[in-house]
Amino acid sequence: MKPAGEFELIAQLCKGLQFSRRVIVGPGDDCAVIASARAPLLLTIDSMVEEVHFDLKWLGAPVLGARALAVNLSDIAAMGGMPHTCVVNLGVRSDLPGDLPRRIYVGLKRAARAAGVDIVGGNVTSSRQLTITIALLGDAGPVILRRDAARVGDAIYVTGTLGDAALGWRILAGQMRATTSAGRFLTARYRAPVARLGAGLKLAALKRRAAAIDISDGLLQDLGHILERSETGAVVQLDALPLSPAYRAVAKDHLDFALTGGEDYELLFCLPPDLTDAQLSRHLGVAVRRIGEIRPRREGLNLRGADGRLVRPSHRGGWDQLLSQTATS
Amino acid sequence: MKPAGEFELIAQLCKGLQFSRRVIVGPGDDCAVIASARAPLLLTIDSMVEEVHFDLKWLGAPVLGARALAVNLSDIAAMGGMPHTCVVNLGVRSDLPGDLPRRIYVGLKRAARAAGVDIVGGNVTSSRQLTITIALLGDAGPVILRRDAARVGDAIYVTGTLGDAALGWRILAGQMRATTSAGRFLTARYRAPVARLGAGLKLAALKRRAAAIDISDGLLQDLGHILERSETGAVVQLDALPLSPAYRAVAKDHLDFALTGGEDYELLFCLPPDLTDAQLSRHLGVAVRRIGEIRPRREGLNLRGADGRLVRPSHRGGWDQLLSQTATS
Repeated sequence: MKPAGEFELIAQLCKGLQFSRRVIVGPGDDCAVIASARAPLLLTIDSMVEEVHFDLKWLGAPVLGARALAVNLSDIAAMGGMPHTCVVNLGVRSDLPGDLPRRIYVGLKRAARAAGVDIVGGNVTSSRQLTITIALLGDAGPVILRRDAARVGDAIYVTGTLGDAALGWRILAGQMRATTSAGRFLTARYRAPVARLGAGLKLAALKRRAAAIDISDGLLQDLGHILERSETGAVVQLDALPLSPAYRAVAKDHLDFALTGGEDYELLFCLPPDLTDAQLSRHLGVAVRRIGEIRPRREGLNLRGADGRLVRPSHRGGWDQLLSQTATS
Repeated sequence: MKPAGEFELIAQLCKGLQFSRRVIVGPGDDCAVIASARAPLLLTIDSMVEEVHFDLKWLGAPVLGARALAVNLSDIAAMGGMPHTCVVNLGVRSDLPGDLPRRIYVGLKRAARAAGVDIVGGNVTSSRQLTITIALLGDAGPVILRRDAARVGDAIYVTGTLGDAALGWRILAGQMRATTSAGRFLTARYRAPVARLGAGLKLAALKRRAAAIDISDGLLQDLGHILERSETGAVVQLDALPLSPAYRAVAKDHLDFALTGGEDYELLFCLPPDLTDAQLSRHLGVAVRRIGEIRPRREGLNLRGADGRLVRPSHRGGWDQLLSQTATS
C-alpha cells in the first residue's frame, strides 16, 4: 500500500549523503543504527495516512493508535532490537469527533505499555487527512539484523503466516467474502498486527550472521530489498509458503495475496540452513517456516512450484492464474 | 499557526503516561530527554503541513526542506543541546511535479550538513497535502534548559528580534505591504528561520539554572508555557521588545506581531538577573535583550507600558489598539 517506487525514491533522495562516524547503518534498512556509548541506537519513522493506509470505517480509533505503533515496532523487531522511546505526530481533520485523538491515544498508550515503550513527546497539527506519524527509538541487540547480510546458500525463513492481512483488508473493503470465523481472523490480522519483537530479539541472541526484514509491502517486494542490499538472488518454494486455514478457506489456491499482499508484519530472515523449522520455532517462540534459499545474484528471484518448475515473477501482481496453476500442478 | 489548544490537547493525550527510568524529561518540553550511557539524548518531532504551515507559492522546495529541519533544530537549541541525527517522513501529493521531493531534499541536506545532522532514514507516503515530518535526535549539553526551571526574580531574555516572520508571512499573503528592502528582510525571516543552536549551546555551557523555550507560537504563548511549567507569573516590558527596523517600518507602533505572531524561532530564556544584555550577547554570540521579569504565580502574566501602567492580556490577538496605545503613551 506504499506508493510505487517509494523505495527507489528514498534511495534517490538520500543519494550523496555523507555520514558522521556515529552512523552505523544509514537509510535503506528497517531502522537507522546510531552508535551510543552502550548499545547502538535504532531509529525509525513510519506514518499511517487516512485513505492511503486505513479507513476509519474499518479501524476504531484505539485500534488505529495501536496499529500505528505496531508498524514501527515491527521495524525494530526486524533489526533484532528492543524498542524503548517514541514521539508521535498527529495530523487531525477538523471535522472529526473532538475526542478522537484521545481515543487514538488510548490504544497507543496500551500498545506502548505492552511493548515497554515510553511516549515522550507529541505534536498535533491540522490536516485534511487523519495522519499518525511515529518515530521510534530502540537499543540494538547483540547482533544487528541488517538487510545486507544474506549470503548464497542461506535458507530463507518467515514467521507466522502470510497474506492474511491482505485478505482481511479486502474483506473489509467488500471485495471478498468469508465465513464469520475466517473473516474475523483475517480482518484481525489486518487491524491488529503483532510486531515480532520477541522473535527478532531471540534471532539476534543467536549471535549468528542473519539478514532480516519485516514484511510490510509483501513477501516478494521485501525479499527483493534483501536481495538488492545483499547482492544475491533467491528461489522461493511456493508449496512451502505458510498459509493460515482461513487464508486457504477464502483464497483457495491463489497465492498472490501471500506473495504480494503486504501488511503482514511477519519477519523474513536468512540464516545458514543448519537449523530445522522446529528448532527455530522453539528458539524464536513463534512458528517459523523455511520457504526458500539465497542463490547467486545472476539467477535473480525465482519461484519454484510443487513440480519443481521455476517461474520468474516479471512484475508485482497479475500472476494470479499462473501462480494458482503452479501451486496446484 | 498551530491549532488552538494544541498544547492542552497534547497534555491531555499524555495524561497518565508512566515512564521508565530512562526518561529524564517526558512530553511538555521542547524535546524529550532520554538517558544514555554518555550524555542524555534529546528527541523531538515536528511537522510542516501544506496550507497549515506553508504555501508552495511562498516557499521554494529547497527552502521548505531547510525550514522543516530548522523548526526541529530550534527545539534542540531551546534545550541547550547538540543535534546529530534525524529521520524524515514525506507525505506527497500525486499532482505535484515529480522532482519536488528531490528538490526538498536539496535544501534539507544542505541544512543538515550545516548543522552537523545525519539524515539516517526516510519514509514517503501518498498524501493530499504536502507534509514534512522530521524526528530529530541530539545530545544534551552540560545543563538541560527545561521549561520548568524559571524562578521568581529571574530576568526574561530573548535573542534577535520578534515578529519579523509574522509580518513576512502577511506580506507574502498580500495582507500587508512593505518597501522592497523591508519586505525582503521580513519574508526571509519567515522563509528561512535560523535555529539559535550556538546560543542554546553557549547558554547551557554557562552551567547555570536557566529555563528556555523557542518562540514558535508567539512570545506570549511560549512565555505562557514557561510560566505554566515553572508555576510562576511574569511581567513583560513592552518598550523593551527587540524590533527590527523593518518591523518598525511596516508595523509602526503595533506590537501584537511581536507579542503573538509566532514563527520567530528565537530563544526565550530566564536567568538570574546578574548579567547585562551586553555580557549575554557576547557570551551567546547573538543579540540578547532583557524584556521582563519572572514574578509570583498569583500575579499572572502582565505587560508593562512605557508609562509603567500594567495591562493584562486577556486573550490572544485582538489587542492591537490597546497595545499600540500602551507602547506609545
